[in-house]
Amino acid sequence: MKVGIYPGSFDPLTNGHLDIIHRGSKICDKLIVSVLSNPSKTSLFTVEERVKMIEDSVTAYDNVEVDHFSGLLINYARERNADAIIKGLRAVSDFEYEFQMALMNKKLCDEVETIFLMTSNKNSFLSSSLLKEVAKFGGCIEGLVPEKIKEAVYHKLK
Amino acid sequence: MKVGIYPGSFDPLTNGHLDIIHRGSKICDKLIVSVLSNPSKTSLFTVEERVKMIEDSVTAYDNVEVDHFSGLLINYARERNADAIIKGLRAVSDFEYEFQMALMNKKLCDEVETIFLMTSNKNSFLSSSLLKEVAKFGGCIEGLVPEKIKEAVYHKLK
Amino acid sequence: MKVGIYPGSFDPLTNGHLDIIHRGSKICDKLIVSVLSNPSKTSLFTVEERVKMIEDSVTAYDNVEVDHFSGLLINYARERNADAIIKGLRAVSDFEYEFQMALMNKKLCDEVETIFLMTSNKNSFLSSSLLKEVAKFGGCIEGLVPEKIKEAVYHKLK
Amino acid sequence: MKVGIYPGSFDPLTNGHLDIIHRGSKICDKLIVSVLSNPSKTSLFTVEERVKMIEDSVTAYDNVEVDHFSGLLINYARERNADAIIKGLRAVSDFEYEFQMALMNKKLCDEVETIFLMTSNKNSFLSSSLLKEVAKFGGCIEGLVPEKIKEAVYHKLK
Amino acid sequence: MKVGIYPGSFDPLTNGHLDIIHRGSKICDKLIVSVLSNPSKTSLFTVEERVKMIEDSVTAYDNVEVDHFSGLLINYARERNADAIIKGLRAVSDFEYEFQMALMNKKLCDEVETIFLMTSNKNSFLSSSLLKEVAKFGGCIEGLVPEKIKEAVYHKLK
Amino acid sequence: MKVGIYPGSFDPLTNGHLDIIHRGSKICDKLIVSVLSNPSKTSLFTVEERVKMIEDSVTAYDNVEVDHFSGLLINYARERNADAIIKGLRAVSDFEYEFQMALMNKKLCDEVETIFLMTSNKNSFLSSSLLKEVAKFGGCIEGLVPEKIKEAVYHKLK
Repeated sequence: MKVGIYPGSFDPLTNGHLDIIHRGSKICDKLIVSVLSNPSKTSLFTVEERVKMIEDSVTAYDNVEVDHFSGLLINYARERNADAIIKGLRAVSDFEYEFQMALMNKKLCDEVETIFLMTSNKNSFLSSSLLKEVAKFGGCIEGLVPEKIKEAVYHKLK
Repeated sequence: MKVGIYPGSFDPLTNGHLDIIHRGSKICDKLIVSVLSNPSKTSLFTVEERVKMIEDSVTAYDNVEVDHFSGLLINYARERNADAIIKGLRAVSDFEYEFQMALMNKKLCDEVETIFLMTSNKNSFLSSSLLKEVAKFGGCIEGLVPEKIKEAVYHKLK
Repeated sequence: MKVGIYPGSFDPLTNGHLDIIHRGSKICDKLIVSVLSNPSKTSLFTVEERVKMIEDSVTAYDNVEVDHFSGLLINYARERNADAIIKGLRAVSDFEYEFQMALMNKKLCDEVETIFLMTSNKNSFLSSSLLKEVAKFGGCIEGLVPEKIKEAVYHKLK
Repeated sequence: MKVGIYPGSFDPLTNGHLDIIHRGSKICDKLIVSVLSNPSKTSLFTVEERVKMIEDSVTAYDNVEVDHFSGLLINYARERNADAIIKGLRAVSDFEYEFQMALMNKKLCDEVETIFLMTSNKNSFLSSSLLKEVAKFGGCIEGLVPEKIKEAVYHKLK
Repeated sequence: MKVGIYPGSFDPLTNGHLDIIHRGSKICDKLIVSVLSNPSKTSLFTVEERVKMIEDSVTAYDNVEVDHFSGLLINYARERNADAIIKGLRAVSDFEYEFQMALMNKKLCDEVETIFLMTSNKNSFLSSSLLKEVAKFGGCIEGLVPEKIKEAVYHKLK
Repeated sequence: MKVGIYPGSFDPLTNGHLDIIHRGSKICDKLIVSVLSNPSKTSLFTVEERVKMIEDSVTAYDNVEVDHFSGLLINYARERNADAIIKGLRAVSDFEYEFQMALMNKKLCDEVETIFLMTSNKNSFLSSSLLKEVAKFGGCIEGLVPEKIKEAVYHKLK
């Protein structure tokens, strides 16, 4: 596969996301991690901050590029000449929703495949929103996000 | 079965809804498609517009009536002397929620049965909300809604 | 709906099955409860015994007929001029399997609809095989099957 | 097990919650039913009202204490020296979410176990939010909540 | 809780089972791990071997007893004066099946509660049958079972 | 991705499998479709027949090779220097099982990734075993398998 896109909110990037990036980088010649800019949703970090955080966390990967997009994912995927969209799966509820999106994207553009990678069971409970919930009440998020992001989360929530 | 009610938001009617109406019309002497008027939820089309859209799409069926209601579905079903409530099933998450509603309705009125019909797999990914999301960003919704509704959706979203 | 078929192994009929027969009889002009004769599966009761048991349990319903069939359900449904196949749903695993069967049957014959009725939550844990397992080890199956079938089950298992 | 905590919104307490309290009180030396005070969520009853309602409904149990908390459940569990968090399970969607929370709580504090009890199938469709929805439109909630809470719900919704 | 029973085939005991035993021992005064003797199922190890394996693996726990039983679990639970049956949950399919069993057991005996503990996500993929499948074809089962059991499995399969 | 393996029983190859092969061939430089030879399972077609059938159906793809294997998939994947195992997903039950296998394979060999592709909703109900069941009773399997395999299935079942 030449180009794969791994889209998401990444608000913030977690170790679960990093795990998918690691796996995705092995199966794509080039992996584009792309932050969805969604004005109708409140986020903790700005799109720019999120892009920067990911860039700082993937320096070890030669073939990973960080980008951001707005609007329909499938249009963005076409613009970037992607062969596939990469998604991480954690649980049944994920699966149902992702199944629906993948079939809709298939209907919108038959050229771009959706590929699912399985989150390591170590991270199966981890989501950005749960992470923020924990941090907000002073819970320890050590080991759930890269060290620098940990500090940024606590700083923002203050 | 004499009278069946197919309730929903239909904001707007999709080809998935039409598929259930087609199936429902075959198993009921009379099928009432009824738009839920829910003031606490924002909708793209007014109740009147939605009723009109459905009426225009079901002219081929002799035994289909279009109506609207507010309040508890089970009360409305009793008023209309319905034998059954008809629901379309797409996926597991649908099923869980619909199971809960059907059991609650059974508790509220043991006379009205809930009947589940399976959405054609062609439409298994289709929902009104996903459709609006796609249309909002200029994606193609050809084949997902009746032709006239397609134009109305684009017009409203402008 | 004129004719509905409720197919199953009914080895033996449980109160869960009776619940579906009760609901089905209300929505069909005629409900055919039909025992699947499957020579490749071991059963506790013969097809004849199972048909007899069901007949004895549905005498209160004017519009319920008991029958048996072998081979493809959809062929049998066509022979009997059925409008719909009636299935009871208990849980997610049921749903997945029944979904697959309903779509296959739709492919084989687009004329016959599959209709799902929800088992009362009182019977949500009940299956013929679990019932036999319990009875085999002397557990009490009171309230899970009609009284006469209870005795027949204990008698057979001796 | 010495101390178990049964946390929730209890807005209001339902017969489903009471069923779990009954089961929980049998397996814990002391069961603390604790109302989550969540300022970012609108509730029908105040925390004080909810605590009072539960106290009035559990007078028959010697080993049940009613309390309230805010912030992270796991921190509260530690403060109260709880051995376990007790959760009621109804359906698959519950399970997925509760699984995620239990694993996160395990990560935050390995000393406190999460224990799942199964809601009686009689109450499998019951939730506080569905109950309020029904009551709001004048539906009958008899048998779904303790008698006194029933009146309080109707009174509040007027 | 005074007495809890953790039943299973344990053919053989895995680290996933050990994880549940560890958690169960913390919430029960006495935990009985009990091997189901099921003559109609082929097993790799005899009941005696399985009991011995578990005994050797739980010597660190003062309050864990190892036993075996046949017939209905609920009858055995009553004989042993158990307050609760302890089950480990891994995934949705587990949940559906266990839900059914728990409700049937509730119907058979209302005195004995079923308690679910969540398997650590580290062991979420682990089952005795998958383990045997892997070992049979020479795959490495290091870290999936206690060291001594690992050798016994390879020895048996030769 | 350089080398992907798509393993299965393919007894026989269906249009659902072909759909996954088509998708897989687009994301791998080389896709190896490999028939599992499992002596402990009865099959309709021999391994040789199944390999031949697939070869005849994938002549249009330059980068697809057909092979067979026995024993552990992960060992075979290593021998063939595969970067990833490709699996098709249809429904929740698939997902649970495949999740378990993927995590076990990850444990056995961290170098080989598991990649999930989503079966087209057109084929979401299709499985080899259901197909054989239908054909066995004279049902029409037109459109579910390649034309030549259709004839072979009927011929074998006679």
